[in-house]
Amino acid sequence: MDRDPPRALLFDVFGTCVDWRSGVIREGEALARRLGLVGVDWGAIAGAWRGRYQPQLETVRSGARPWTTLDVLHREALDGVLAEAGLDAAAVPAAERDGLTLAWHRLDPWPDVVEGLARLRRRSIVAPCSNAHIALVVAMARRAGLVWDAVLGAELARAYKPQPEVYLRSAAALGLAPGDAMMVAAHPDDLAAAAACGLRTAFVPRPAEHGPRHAGDAPPDVPAVELVARDFHDLARLLGG
Amino acid sequence: MDRDPPRALLFDVFGTCVDWRSGVIREGEALARRLGLVGVDWGAIAGAWRGRYQPQLETVRSGARPWTTLDVLHREALDGVLAEAGLDAAAVPAAERDGLTLAWHRLDPWPDVVEGLARLRRRSIVAPCSNAHIALVVAMARRAGLVWDAVLGAELARAYKPQPEVYLRSAAALGLAPGDAMMVAAHPDDLAAAAACGLRTAFVPRPAEHGPRHAGDAPPDVPAVELVARDFHDLARLLGG
Repeated sequence: MDRDPPRALLFDVFGTCVDWRSGVIREGEALARRLGLVGVDWGAIAGAWRGRYQPQLETVRSGARPWTTLDVLHREALDGVLAEAGLDAAAVPAAERDGLTLAWHRLDPWPDVVEGLARLRRRSIVAPCSNAHIALVVAMARRAGLVWDAVLGAELARAYKPQPEVYLRSAAALGLAPGDAMMVAAHPDDLAAAAACGLRTAFVPRPAEHGPRHAGDAPPDVPAVELVARDFHDLARLLGG
Repeated sequence: MDRDPPRALLFDVFGTCVDWRSGVIREGEALARRLGLVGVDWGAIAGAWRGRYQPQLETVRSGARPWTTLDVLHREALDGVLAEAGLDAAAVPAAERDGLTLAWHRLDPWPDVVEGLARLRRRSIVAPCSNAHIALVVAMARRAGLVWDAVLGAELARAYKPQPEVYLRSAAALGLAPGDAMMVAAHPDDLAAAAACGLRTAFVPRPAEHGPRHAGDAPPDVPAVELVARDFHDLARLLGG
């Protein structure tokens, strides 16, 4: 890398740091065992649940509803997802749906993340810049053993990525100009939005994010991305740490 | 303790976690050596600087000025403090004043804090609920080796303690009712305000906060305070950890 390491690394979380699909499947299968449900495709449910995410966020980004945490949005979406899978309120009662919603608090990091993040933190401030609210990120980090210097992102800005204020407010909260922060994500649209705000960018592909039958996101167009790293260890190496 | 440990511990920072007076003296003395200044009472300057803090915050709390970070307020106050000490712009140039303002980012924790906080974190979420802005808390924590689960407090609420929204917003950001969080502070007024919001409270006296010639704050009236702990290790013990 020709440039100095960034003062701060800002991380997308779902998909980039943690494996949401496997975590939802794990908790769904545990629920199914508890309730005696058979033949449920929890991989499909995880995908459908995540698929409702961006349309939901758009209702907040458009101003149609006020800023709302992902716990509320996830819980609302779950009813539709389970109905589509043929699971009604008799099959999965409300209290179980409330519990399953918290699966998003209990996602496992990809194998490189705990150590890689600790390594990256030696040189740069590390903070999530996620659409997840603070309570979710804190619960996830404590369970997984992730150490963040601060929890930034959507709740601080009261906006949702890719709205510019999420990136800009996160850098500003660290006292940094946008160019002193680098967004790290597995999603080209996230990086493109960060780059448009003046942040530096690193793409870390997570080809297993959507399961074995999907390809991961392709590396984004070169102009939007400064670095492409295989994982967080590789990112540390590329940043000279 | 008769009650369960709190889900979260929220900490005052200046005075409770870190020794602001010694840190300012240390940086002032280094500046004096650099500039060849002699006979300056940096302990008096530290006290006078801190003395301007609450009147400054009051201008924000009253709505007379918008929310402003402590870096700006500290820098503004420094000019008056140095003038009172007979140090004009020729004696201490602007760039040195800017640098000295960052002394507040480089304060040392009291001797029990790094280990005590790590011990407390094993059982409860730990987060600062300080009037310091996020960038200051992050810089201080990274330098001192403090690990926080999130950085809450004034900047999140865009208000200054003892305004209720600082305590309430900090607990809410963790998804907690006020009574599931405990405010930890060396200052009775901070604890009284937190208690009025429904938070639990722990008083940790720091008798050296204002230097050797001052007593620390006396333990506050019993109704406002649930626990009195000698230091963070003692607090962990009282909380059963």
